[in-house]
Amino acid sequence: MHATPSSTPSTTLTFTTEQPLDDGVLERRFTLDDVPGVLWTPATAMPSDPAPLILLGQPGGLGTERMYPRLVARARGAATEGFATATIEPPGAGDRPRDPGADRARADLREALAAGRPVTDDIVDRLILPLVDQAVPEWRATLDALPELPEIGGPVGFSGGVVAVGVRLAAVEPRIRAAGLFAGSYVPRATLEEARRVTIPVHVLLQWDDEGNDRQAALDLFDAFGSTEKTLQANLGGHTGVPAHAAEDAGRFFARHLL
Amino acid sequence: MHATPSSTPSTTLTFTTEQPLDDGVLERRFTLDDVPGVLWTPATAMPSDPAPLILLGQPGGLGTERMYPRLVARARGAATEGFATATIEPPGAGDRPRDPGADRARADLREALAAGRPVTDDIVDRLILPLVDQAVPEWRATLDALPELPEIGGPVGFSGGVVAVGVRLAAVEPRIRAAGLFAGSYVPRATLEEARRVTIPVHVLLQWDDEGNDRQAALDLFDAFGSTEKTLQANLGGHTGVPAHAAEDAGRFFARHLL
Repeated sequence: MHATPSSTPSTTLTFTTEQPLDDGVLERRFTLDDVPGVLWTPATAMPSDPAPLILLGQPGGLGTERMYPRLVARARGAATEGFATATIEPPGAGDRPRDPGADRARADLREALAAGRPVTDDIVDRLILPLVDQAVPEWRATLDALPELPEIGGPVGFSGGVVAVGVRLAAVEPRIRAAGLFAGSYVPRATLEEARRVTIPVHVLLQWDDEGNDRQAALDLFDAFGSTEKTLQANLGGHTGVPAHAAEDAGRFFARHLL
Repeated sequence: MHATPSSTPSTTLTFTTEQPLDDGVLERRFTLDDVPGVLWTPATAMPSDPAPLILLGQPGGLGTERMYPRLVARARGAATEGFATATIEPPGAGDRPRDPGADRARADLREALAAGRPVTDDIVDRLILPLVDQAVPEWRATLDALPELPEIGGPVGFSGGVVAVGVRLAAVEPRIRAAGLFAGSYVPRATLEEARRVTIPVHVLLQWDDEGNDRQAALDLFDAFGSTEKTLQANLGGHTGVPAHAAEDAGRFFARHLL
């Protein structure tokens, strides 16, 4: 799994729409074969001064349209620092075909939570691992395609989304040079093992009172990273309460390592 | 204990030396009755534009002279942000009279560590609590005296030092509006209880692999703070390995709350 070759060169990148935002950021929708995505480039990005790229991870299941306000806010923030950003539709989200196995696991999860039963490793594995297995090669294909654009260049970062996806990508993809991860989703046991193989700088955000998240699992994950530079930033509040200064600190983390 | 009145107005502040540093920071040594201290004010501090003050805590036992290089570096950094800073000699350090009880506790601590025995709550209490009991009123006396200077004004912060001292001070002293604490010293059980009464913003630094420090105790302390805004930043490395970006983040924390 960790020796997975990068995607085949037959992946086709097609731009479908192009829209300049009011702050000069150019928003382009694309498809990468059958996976839709969005690319945001700052006005400053040009072939003579290409912008480094940050891949914006997404939570599982919500999809780009529901996540759009938060994604575009992150894209605009990153653009002010000179970064291009891109996201792709997660497996099973938006108009993409659903995974019956993941749907069953999600139903089992809801049932366990409603009954006050513990969320078993088995449920977490069935919910998260197929998503990781499918999403990581799609992100790698994105990395084959987007940096071919003349206005994009330099090291690549990965930010947010399902933490197990970011861990696998950081472990297997040498083009990712810095990972900003949000410890706000379930961590399969296998992800802890993969984290030991991560050696790039990581910046981990944790919401201390995240309703649906196991704090100790997040601390164990942070402990597991093999990186010689790693930072955990925990803030008071629930899953959606990440304070503005935490986002700014994450931005400075990427600026330190990618600019 | 927590209703301790502020120091009596009979405390006498006497400046003993005055030395401008090369970056325009003015370093003044003082005594507050029999406690020596150092005050650093930025060149920008003047009666028409007084500088807010950050109190620089110290570890127990080393003393101002041995800590001077690190203290003056923090003072210079804070001055570039417009802050005045001050420190006072900790009880039992420098030329101040030693506390035989604290010395015995330190000997017991060394013996326990050398023998590979656990450091008991009793040792921690005897080592830390008398220091807290003595240091906190001295810091409060400092707060009575220094803001009387016309070039100092505005809210006050407390930064670093023995964490139990910072916790008590944050809990009992309403003039302290933000506390940046270093979870790198033993935490008495009583300190956990005092942390629940802290309601000001706190920024806690933790070195993840601090040799002489209990990581779980630091996490429990962070959890205990009653503040509605609190951040834990943990970085890879040992006690003295705090990365430069962590100091910058702590600086931004004070700027957010005091400027």
